[in-house]
Amino acid sequence: MSKRIAGPEIERLIQLLAKVPGLGPRSARRAALYLIKKKEQLFAPLSAAMSEALEKVRLCSVCGNVDTSDPCTVCTDPRRDGATLIVVEDVSDLWALERAAAMSARYHVLGGTLSPLDGVGPDDLNIKGLISRVAEGGISEVILAVNATVEGQATAHYITDQLTGLNVKVTRLAHGVPVGGELDYLDEGTLAAALKSRTAF
Amino acid sequence: MSKRIAGPEIERLIQLLAKVPGLGPRSARRAALYLIKKKEQLFAPLSAAMSEALEKVRLCSVCGNVDTSDPCTVCTDPRRDGATLIVVEDVSDLWALERAAAMSARYHVLGGTLSPLDGVGPDDLNIKGLISRVAEGGISEVILAVNATVEGQATAHYITDQLTGLNVKVTRLAHGVPVGGELDYLDEGTLAAALKSRTAF
Repeated sequence: MSKRIAGPEIERLIQLLAKVPGLGPRSARRAALYLIKKKEQLFAPLSAAMSEALEKVRLCSVCGNVDTSDPCTVCTDPRRDGATLIVVEDVSDLWALERAAAMSARYHVLGGTLSPLDGVGPDDLNIKGLISRVAEGGISEVILAVNATVEGQATAHYITDQLTGLNVKVTRLAHGVPVGGELDYLDEGTLAAALKSRTAF
Repeated sequence: MSKRIAGPEIERLIQLLAKVPGLGPRSARRAALYLIKKKEQLFAPLSAAMSEALEKVRLCSVCGNVDTSDPCTVCTDPRRDGATLIVVEDVSDLWALERAAAMSARYHVLGGTLSPLDGVGPDDLNIKGLISRVAEGGISEVILAVNATVEGQATAHYITDQLTGLNVKVTRLAHGVPVGGELDYLDEGTLAAALKSRTAF
């Protein structure tokens, strides 16, 4: 804005809102104005929820998930199958798999993938924690639910090597046609994998 | 989420973020996770900016703008032309006109438009404040920058009637082709107005 039209507190709020993914400079202005208008219904509760979450949020020392308790809600849930461990790159992957609601297992969040070009080595990821969790026993299967990218697959290979000799089954997600997907739009690699892993009808 | 995967503070933050315009349930999750990851760089400053703005924000008693001071930054700016008053429906319109940076005038925010069907009458808008500002003198022109909708135009007519006898020039925004607009996509009303108000080339 060429000229100041609002106090510095409002301009700062807009600047920071614009950095939230999903909002840009324009929608941040719109969001700030909406919040100011819905002061009691939304602005006040949101501000309180932010302060509270900010104060309480922490990393789970067991699995690397983010939560407001340590160990986290997933790690302390007694109904989950403790013998299966799903390894994911990021907390967002954990949340995505939970939305699928296909398994009731525990998780281990790596916090990224091996990427030598970016200077990310095994010590920068939560891999040691994974090895010691498995070494403690009680886990029969480790599912590597990393992304199907070069970095993700390299990380999966590294972890598989590290787990050798620990008497645990290591599996990975199936490759294939996404549910609702059209063959015409799929790449050759996916189609080849789907053909290779075909199942009885 | 079918099963609790995070503490109630995080779920509440996601629920409230989802009500911010521009964010939905999916992007609210993504935004919450991003905030948690950028705890020091974004989450903490944003939370502080929200608390501060929430505490300080108020309506300007002169013009109806929202700001952290009363009278607001626009009303107290000594460089603005106090003889011209731009009447807008909403604070967002004030901000939009300021971005155009075409005039350095003062504003008056109505807070909506007359809408008998929704039960919005003259007393529900900041019209009395406008009349008394003009009656106090010192204002030579009132620009009615209301939306080009039926309600906006009805409100403009009502205000013009109220201002009769107060010795002030009442103008409205020009109708015409938007800058960068293509004639082919414009409605007949706009084209007719643009032809009627044609200017020398």
